[in-house]
Amino acid sequence: MNGAENLVRTAVAAGVEVCFANPGTTEMALVAALDGVEGMRAVLGLFEGVCTGAADGYARMADKPALTLTHLGPGFANGIANLHNARRARSPLVNIIGDQATWHLAADAPLTSDIVSLARPVSAWVREVKTAASIAADTAEAIAAARNAPGHVSTLIVPSDCLWSPASGPANPLPVSTPLQVTDDVVRRAAATLRKYGNKAVMFLGGHAMRQRSLAAAGRIAQKTGCRLVCETFPSRIERGAGRPPVEKLPYFPEQALEMLSKYQAIVLAGALPPVAFFGYPNLPSSLIPEGCISETLVTPEHDTMTALEALAYELGAPVADLSVTKQNRPPRPTGKLDSATVGAALAALMPDNCIVMDEAATTGLPFFASSAGAPPHTYLALTGGAIGQGLPCATGAAVACPNRKVIAFQADGSGMYTVQALWTHAREGLNVTTLICNNRRYRILQVELTRAGITEPGRKARSLTSLADPEIGWTSLAKGMGVPAVQVDTAEDLCVQLERALTESGPNLIEMLI
Amino acid sequence: MNGAENLVRTAVAAGVEVCFANPGTTEMALVAALDGVEGMRAVLGLFEGVCTGAADGYARMADKPALTLTHLGPGFANGIANLHNARRARSPLVNIIGDQATWHLAADAPLTSDIVSLARPVSAWVREVKTAASIAADTAEAIAAARNAPGHVSTLIVPSDCLWSPASGPANPLPVSTPLQVTDDVVRRAAATLRKYGNKAVMFLGGHAMRQRSLAAAGRIAQKTGCRLVCETFPSRIERGAGRPPVEKLPYFPEQALEMLSKYQAIVLAGALPPVAFFGYPNLPSSLIPEGCISETLVTPEHDTMTALEALAYELGAPVADLSVTKQNRPPRPTGKLDSATVGAALAALMPDNCIVMDEAATTGLPFFASSAGAPPHTYLALTGGAIGQGLPCATGAAVACPNRKVIAFQADGSGMYTVQALWTHAREGLNVTTLICNNRRYRILQVELTRAGITEPGRKARSLTSLADPEIGWTSLAKGMGVPAVQVDTAEDLCVQLERALTESGPNLIEMLI
Repeated sequence: MNGAENLVRTAVAAGVEVCFANPGTTEMALVAALDGVEGMRAVLGLFEGVCTGAADGYARMADKPALTLTHLGPGFANGIANLHNARRARSPLVNIIGDQATWHLAADAPLTSDIVSLARPVSAWVREVKTAASIAADTAEAIAAARNAPGHVSTLIVPSDCLWSPASGPANPLPVSTPLQVTDDVVRRAAATLRKYGNKAVMFLGGHAMRQRSLAAAGRIAQKTGCRLVCETFPSRIERGAGRPPVEKLPYFPEQALEMLSKYQAIVLAGALPPVAFFGYPNLPSSLIPEGCISETLVTPEHDTMTALEALAYELGAPVADLSVTKQNRPPRPTGKLDSATVGAALAALMPDNCIVMDEAATTGLPFFASSAGAPPHTYLALTGGAIGQGLPCATGAAVACPNRKVIAFQADGSGMYTVQALWTHAREGLNVTTLICNNRRYRILQVELTRAGITEPGRKARSLTSLADPEIGWTSLAKGMGVPAVQVDTAEDLCVQLERALTESGPNLIEMLI
Repeated sequence: MNGAENLVRTAVAAGVEVCFANPGTTEMALVAALDGVEGMRAVLGLFEGVCTGAADGYARMADKPALTLTHLGPGFANGIANLHNARRARSPLVNIIGDQATWHLAADAPLTSDIVSLARPVSAWVREVKTAASIAADTAEAIAAARNAPGHVSTLIVPSDCLWSPASGPANPLPVSTPLQVTDDVVRRAAATLRKYGNKAVMFLGGHAMRQRSLAAAGRIAQKTGCRLVCETFPSRIERGAGRPPVEKLPYFPEQALEMLSKYQAIVLAGALPPVAFFGYPNLPSSLIPEGCISETLVTPEHDTMTALEALAYELGAPVADLSVTKQNRPPRPTGKLDSATVGAALAALMPDNCIVMDEAATTGLPFFASSAGAPPHTYLALTGGAIGQGLPCATGAAVACPNRKVIAFQADGSGMYTVQALWTHAREGLNVTTLICNNRRYRILQVELTRAGITEPGRKARSLTSLADPEIGWTSLAKGMGVPAVQVDTAEDLCVQLERALTESGPNLIEMLI
C-alpha cells in the first residue's frame, strides 16, 4: 500500500465519502488510489473554486467533511475564495494539496511556491507531510481537526513522493472535540434578560441555531417571552418555511440594520457573533448593536447551540407542545415584467417541498426571503463570506449530499460568471440542480454603492466597470455549452411555466431570467 | 483630491496606462478616480484571474507594468494563479487590492482576511497602506519595485477609508534600478568556454535573451562557435520565425531534456537559471544538466542580458553583418484529420507576419513550435509558471498592449476552462484575438502522466477524472454566450479555410477544433 492509498483508506474509515477533485501530475497517485479504493466518490470540477465551493455546500448539508484535491499552490489558490466562505460558514472540510516531491522542492521548479502561506488565511489547521510513513496519521488528524466543533477547514499538503512511497496501513479515526456546553448560570441569566425585556429583546441567531431542532426551541422562547428572532445576514443554513418558526434576517446595509435593532433594548446572541457591518462606511459604526442596547451571549458559535436553546426554553417554561409555527402561505403566481419582486414571488409560489435554495442572487434576490417565509419547508443557504462565485459550486455540493432533494441555485449573473464551470459538473453528475440566473446585465450592487458614495452621475469608465452589457452574456448558450439544458424567459408568466417544468425534471437545468 | 485619485495620478505620472479591474465595494473610490483621471484605460475582467493574466501578457509585450484592481483577500486570491505565472515570467505588474476601512478591520467583518499572507508567495514587494497621506508615495514605490530589473510583482493593499480621505498631490515616479552588468572577466570566460567546446556547447537562453537584439547577438555567437541555442521550456517571450536566429526549446519531460543535453559538454547560461525538471519523477534527477557537463553563467535573469550577449559576440569576433538567420519556410497547408501535427502545420502555414502566439495548447501544441520555426517573424509567449488558465487572459493583455498586431490564443480545452471568462473581455474590448481551441475532450497530459506512472489500464474513476467528455464542452456555444463569434472544425482543410478567414477579421473570434 502506498501513501496515497493510505490517505484515501484513512479518509474512508473516518466516514469521508466524497472527493471534489481537480488533480494534476503531482496527484496522480491519489487518482490511482481513488480509483482502487471503494467508498470514495470522485467528483471532477473544471476549476478548483468549483471543488472547494462544492465541499462547502456538501458540508453544510451533510454535516461532515468532503475532501478537495488540488494541484500545488496555484491550483489551491484557485479554491481560496470559496474556502474563505467555508471558513465563515464553519464548514468542516479537508483540502488535500499535492506538492513537488520532497527532494525536488529545492530545485524551485516552475510550479513550486509557498503553499503554507496561501493556506493559512483560510485554514484552521495546516500541515506539510514529510514522509509516506506519517500520511495516514496526518490524514486522520486533518479530518479530526475539520470535524472538531463547530467545523473547520483543514489543509494537508502532500509531496508526490510521499504519495507514491510504500507505507503501512491506514489510520483509525481520531476522537473529535464536542461543542462547548453553557453553564446553568448563563442560561438563567439569558432567561432573566429575555423575561425582563420581553418584546424589547431580540434573539440573534447564527450557525447551528437555525437547524430544525434548535429553531423549534428558539420559537418556543420567542413565543413565551415576546422576543424577536433575527438571524445573521448571511446564514450558513436555515431551516425555514411552513412548520418552522419565523426568523427574519438582519438587513445588509448598516443603516437598515441599526434601524431594525434600534427598536430593542437587549440582544441575546445564540450561535452568532455580535453583528457588524459588512463594510465600513463613513459616519456609520462597525458594530450594529445600537448604543444603549445591552448585548449578552447565550452561546457562541463554538457552543452546543441546540442544547443551550432547549435548556433556555425549559428554564423559561416554554412548552414543547405549544409552538406556533409559520402556516403555509405562498404568494400567488406573479404576472407581468420580471423584477426582483416577481422573481422572488415566482420562486416562492412554486418551490417544492423540502427543496434547498442556494441564494447568491444579490440585489435581485432581496425580496425572495420575505416572499418565501410561508413556502413549504425548505433549507436556505447563503453567501457566508462575501466571496462571490459561491452559488453554483455550493449548489453542486448540496446536490451531491442530498440526491433526493431538489436544489435551486438562485444566482446573480455577475457572481455566477466567477465559477460558471460548475454547470459542467451539474451535467457530469446529473445533479438535481435548477439554476435561476438573474441576468440584469450589471453589477447592480456596485451601482448602488457608487450612489451611496455620492457618485450619482458616473462617467464612461465607471459605468463600464459596473456593466455586464456590451456584450450581453448569453446564459442559455453558456449552459448548453456545458451540457445543461436551458431556456430564457422575460416575463413572470413565462418564468412560472418554465420553473414549474424545470422543477419536475430530474437532472440539471437552467432558466435565464432577463430582468 | 482623495487617496484614490492620488493613486491613479501617481500611476499615470509613472507611465502606467492600463488597469485590469474587477472592483468591489471597497474599491468604489478607485472606480471614481479611474473615471475622473485622464490617461488610464480601465479594462473589466469578469474574474480576477483574467485581470492578473492580462496584466502579465501586457507586461510581456509592453515591457512596463499595468495595474490590477481586485477586491479584498478572496478577490485577490482568484488572481494568484496567474500572478504565479507572472512572477515566473518576471513580468512587472502592480496589484492594487482594496481592503476594509482601517477602523473596520478589527470588526472582522465577513470579507476580512489576511491579505498579506496571500500576497507574499507571488509578490516581490507587499505593503499595506496605513493613511491616505502615504498613498501617493506608496504607489510610486510599488511601481518602482515592479519596474526594478528584471521585473517584479508588487502588491499594494489599500483600505477603503484611505482611498476616500483627502490627501495632497500625486507623487513623482521614483528611480528604477537598472539590470546588473557582467564583468569583462565573465564575458572572457564564457568566450573561452564556447571556443573550447565549439559544437559540444549549448547556450541556454532565458528571460530577455530571446528578445530580438539579444537573440541576434546569440545567433552570431552560435554561428561563430558552433554552439547550439536552446531556450527554457516555457519562455516568457521569444522573437522567432523568418529573419531570426533559430532557437530550440528544451523538451518538457526530463528524459528527453537529459537526452538532448547529454550530447554536450558545456552549458552557458544566458538569462536563464540552470534547467530543472518540471516535476520530480522517481529515478530521475532534479537538475537537467547531465553529469560531467560543465555549467557556466554568463548572465542571470537579473542581468542586462542584451549588453552581455553583444559583449560576448564582440569578444568572440562574431561580426554583426554576418548573421545567418532562418529563411521563411512554412509547411504546406495540411489536409486530413485534425491532430497535433495538422493543427500545428495549419497554424504555421497561415499565421500572419508579426503576430503574437500565446501557446497554452499543452499536448496538442507540441509540434507547433518546430513547424513554425520558418513562419513569418512572430512573438511566442508560453505558460511560464505552469499554473493553467493563463492563455486566454495573457492573450487579452498582449492584445491590449499591441492593438495593431494579431494575437493568436492557441489554447488547450482543459486549461481554457479555468479562465474562460476572458473571452468576454475579448469581446468587450474588441481585441484582435483569434482563439484556437484544441478540443480533445480530455486532460491528455494527465493521461500521459498516469501511463508514465505505470497505470496503463485506469479504472472508471481515474478515467473520469482525466476526461472532459460526458458532457462534451461546446466551445462555440461558450464563445457565443460571451459575444465572441465562433465556428467548429473537424478537418485540417476546414481549419485552414476558417483560420484564413478569422485572421483577416478584426476583433475577436474563436475556432473550436475537434481533435
